[in-house]
Amino acid sequence: MFGLRGAPGQVAKRLGISRTGLYTDLAELRRPLRDRSRHPVRPRRRRPGGPQRGPPARPPGRPRRPLRLHVKTAKSVEVARRVHGDCPITASTLAEAEHSADAGYRDILYAVGIAPHKLPRVAALLRRGVTLTVLLDTPCKPRRWLGSPRRKSSALPALVEIDCDGHRGGGVVPADPALVEIGRALGPHLAGVLTHAGESYFASSREAQREAAAQERDAAVEAATTLRDASLPCAIVSVGSTPTAHAATDLTGVTEVRAGNFVFFDLVMASIGVCSTDDLALSVVVTVIGHQPDRNRVLTDGGWMATSRDRGTQVQAVDQGYGLVTDLDGRLVPTSS
Amino acid sequence: MFGLRGAPGQVAKRLGISRTGLYTDLAELRRPLRDRSRHPVRPRRRRPGGPQRGPPARPPGRPRRPLRLHVKTAKSVEVARRVHGDCPITASTLAEAEHSADAGYRDILYAVGIAPHKLPRVAALLRRGVTLTVLLDTPCKPRRWLGSPRRKSSALPALVEIDCDGHRGGGVVPADPALVEIGRALGPHLAGVLTHAGESYFASSREAQREAAAQERDAAVEAATTLRDASLPCAIVSVGSTPTAHAATDLTGVTEVRAGNFVFFDLVMASIGVCSTDDLALSVVVTVIGHQPDRNRVLTDGGWMATSRDRGTQVQAVDQGYGLVTDLDGRLVPTSS
Repeated sequence: MFGLRGAPGQVAKRLGISRTGLYTDLAELRRPLRDRSRHPVRPRRRRPGGPQRGPPARPPGRPRRPLRLHVKTAKSVEVARRVHGDCPITASTLAEAEHSADAGYRDILYAVGIAPHKLPRVAALLRRGVTLTVLLDTPCKPRRWLGSPRRKSSALPALVEIDCDGHRGGGVVPADPALVEIGRALGPHLAGVLTHAGESYFASSREAQREAAAQERDAAVEAATTLRDASLPCAIVSVGSTPTAHAATDLTGVTEVRAGNFVFFDLVMASIGVCSTDDLALSVVVTVIGHQPDRNRVLTDGGWMATSRDRGTQVQAVDQGYGLVTDLDGRLVPTSS
Repeated sequence: MFGLRGAPGQVAKRLGISRTGLYTDLAELRRPLRDRSRHPVRPRRRRPGGPQRGPPARPPGRPRRPLRLHVKTAKSVEVARRVHGDCPITASTLAEAEHSADAGYRDILYAVGIAPHKLPRVAALLRRGVTLTVLLDTPCKPRRWLGSPRRKSSALPALVEIDCDGHRGGGVVPADPALVEIGRALGPHLAGVLTHAGESYFASSREAQREAAAQERDAAVEAATTLRDASLPCAIVSVGSTPTAHAATDLTGVTEVRAGNFVFFDLVMASIGVCSTDDLALSVVVTVIGHQPDRNRVLTDGGWMATSRDRGTQVQAVDQGYGLVTDLDGRLVPTSS
């Protein structure tokens, strides 16, 4: 058996850690892993806003804002709690939000554009005492249903999604007149703005990541200023991605930072220098089930479902395939491609 | 809302149909789908070995052998039962085998090379009265542990994996002297041979699929003959893939056919003509959460996890992306790429 280190974050789900805790599938291994304390599932202690190396203390001059952990990476209450306690979280689906609410989380941002048919589930979460914040980027939506007199206006805070780098499909650019239009339409629901520097995943130097972080902050703060200049409230200014959260040097005007990938990190982050391959916390442990010396290859039982085809490194300078091969102690095994 | 038809089979799992029956996630839609009887989840009634169109009656001259349904496509007892009753099944993981055993299935082939540390789980299934057949392709394995005197020799039937087209990592070619060596090492465990024409997924004409089916059959039967000529038993001669199962014209010497993709079909199968796009039984229903007329695109809430990056058509003549777009009645919506 050996490990595939740095396989995508979604393998966490395949390993079953969202169901019954860490090491679920590993428990059936014939012999215990030699050092379970550090391999293969070890949520990172290094946090965004903290230093690049060493303990998570704030170095002089490095900004820190409240972290709103994105739970879509680990999809695991156990991991979220171990990394971040019971702090505010970000969810990418209502299922994640509901699962987190079941576990006691009460401050949840649903960071995907809200749609009308999801409102009953949103309302159910509100009734449970969850502060659920939703996201939107079009003026027609709030008018039609968020602002419905049937709903208690103060119960559902909403953020306007801002496009800071053209990466994400959604969002309005700060200069778009639609921004104020949406803000007005939201009425008492308006709680702030949110942006995500998705392009920072392609920023392959520390300097480029710093620039992406500055651009992300600037867009969010500009949007907030625009709303306030129009006499609209904007209490929340939310930014974040794992690269920008680690690289930001100025978060003036920002009220919270979102990140989630850093929990395990992955080869995409290692490739652009946000972490090293030693920082990768997740491996898929597979069994060699065949050996073909003439073809110089082994066959494992880690199939497409276990390793996923969602391989971020295929668009990077070095394509790491389905991951780096390690032994059971987590040491890299040289391979020829 | 609209559908992405022909998204990969694994979306079945995302739709939740393995947990609480069909339409789990659809139940939350604001209004019911107009014709649930045929869209979006409708296991195919057309079966391998049956005709290419029309009801599943056997046309003159078309061979038919017992079908051992591969459950890895649907990962759903409900779907397996609806398609195929309580017949013999094929599983790709022990978890699938165990789940199926829980549901009452008692004849299960675990069609991935067996590894020693999995034997305790195999033994547990045997103790529950399951006839679990395992697979291997190296002579060292059975000697070491299958043949252990601790195990009741007759309880664990094993098949030798045969490589019929170089597609799969595993398997020995029929002419390889290792075949008889493995057969001898298996001793009383030896139950037969198995092969899978994985290359048939790239056979883009009916004729090429017929040839792949003939090649698959020939390799399996040749391997069986070799074992029998060495005075070894070979009761089971197992072949199958969805394309060859539909195209085979001669299954002489074959005792069972395995297939699973046909349950829903997908765009890969449609592209090579095994089915038409009208035959695709699975859609991902997504909600439009953004519209950008200037970019000529809409944004949906169907993310990477819902649509998967395991996109078979990217290596075919026509790359269908994440699927064909349909309306809620399943009618194709023309799109520009």
